[in-house]
Amino acid sequence: MAKVICAGLGPGDPDLISVRSDRVIRAAAQVAYFRKAGRRGQARAIVEGMLRAGVTELPMEYPVTTEIPFDSPEYNDALARFYDDWADRLAAMPGEVVVLCEGDPFFYGSFMHLYARLKDRTEIEVIPGITGMAGCWHATGTPITWGDDVMSVLMGTLPEDDLVAHMQTADALVIMKTGRNLPKVRRALATAGRLDDAWLIERGTMPGERVARLAEVDGADCPYFAIVIVHGQGRRPEVHA
Amino acid sequence: MAKVICAGLGPGDPDLISVRSDRVIRAAAQVAYFRKAGRRGQARAIVEGMLRAGVTELPMEYPVTTEIPFDSPEYNDALARFYDDWADRLAAMPGEVVVLCEGDPFFYGSFMHLYARLKDRTEIEVIPGITGMAGCWHATGTPITWGDDVMSVLMGTLPEDDLVAHMQTADALVIMKTGRNLPKVRRALATAGRLDDAWLIERGTMPGERVARLAEVDGADCPYFAIVIVHGQGRRPEVHA
Repeated sequence: MAKVICAGLGPGDPDLISVRSDRVIRAAAQVAYFRKAGRRGQARAIVEGMLRAGVTELPMEYPVTTEIPFDSPEYNDALARFYDDWADRLAAMPGEVVVLCEGDPFFYGSFMHLYARLKDRTEIEVIPGITGMAGCWHATGTPITWGDDVMSVLMGTLPEDDLVAHMQTADALVIMKTGRNLPKVRRALATAGRLDDAWLIERGTMPGERVARLAEVDGADCPYFAIVIVHGQGRRPEVHA
Repeated sequence: MAKVICAGLGPGDPDLISVRSDRVIRAAAQVAYFRKAGRRGQARAIVEGMLRAGVTELPMEYPVTTEIPFDSPEYNDALARFYDDWADRLAAMPGEVVVLCEGDPFFYGSFMHLYARLKDRTEIEVIPGITGMAGCWHATGTPITWGDDVMSVLMGTLPEDDLVAHMQTADALVIMKTGRNLPKVRRALATAGRLDDAWLIERGTMPGERVARLAEVDGADCPYFAIVIVHGQGRRPEVHA
């Protein structure tokens, strides 16, 4: 029977991979990773230089792009078949397969769809990782939450009214899946009175890292993988001069 | 001038420390860590067996316990003086000092109070870590968030009405600082109709890890460092038979 190990890769800097994931990745004879068709893939890029010579690589190429609406039945069906197919293929592999996953595999990760299909069929181990959002708040050089701060993680795909409601009631905010939703996210932050405290972070902890005030970013400049952050300002003991 | 490096330790299993933190900890000639007076300290326990022979250890013992209300002026003043004092002492150390911090140092961490005092005075580097909450959701063996789920992180110290409001509007929930607040947290979850989906996790990823349905936990059993989790149930492609 196959054993599947999902190795969380963390936010992007290979030096931020856990000791256990690092060891598993360097020893792997078979690795699999998600990528868009025709792309190299971010997960594969992170482990460049870490894989054994002669490793078998299994790129799992998404059947459709993010340009098709997430809520269309076609997208959903194609994805379901894609995950069904790869679950079958991984379960049929001889010996151990290491699946490489950016961030933390159990936090909005694609691996979860394989996990749901494999957990009752094969031996499976999931190694946590530092989330991409943590890489982004570290990139800002400012702590994200203090004291009793409420932190909410929101997807830019949510309706604008929902975004506003959460932005008004939470202290610290993390907004993912920005991209084409960035103008909506920006309007929602402005409505909630929080735009001036919002930061846009691209490629946190990686080469080409960029940290900018969201209010100062050109509206046409909407990188899909950027994360928006508003830091909490919770209670803390006063700093004396 | 001193250099202070804060090494995020992750959720507790030393194998989940990042490659960079692991390297920095093993090479350290001077380490500092927070602990309650008279305790060994969780951060120190995590690195047992990793420190160099002859390392200088600086236990930073909190002046007061959690038994004094967090919002009392006395607690706040004592803590401010404690952080002021340790910031001065670390800044005066000869060479590099590695400060050991559980979880992620910028996510509700005590190190942030030293960081606020040191960042304009000394060279300072902060190494991210896997959060304690991630260790807890991995302990449940179930992903925490899917699709467009909203995840909110709440402190058990919040007023009950605030807890209920957030529990009703977010999909995935993480509730920290439970302890004596656990009866209130449990009532709030019941009011929000979410108690039956709540899990209590102690010592996630560590020896003695315990995962239990919150509804089935004895009300008198309130470990301070336990985390309560309600998993999101967001949109996902259907799993076929």
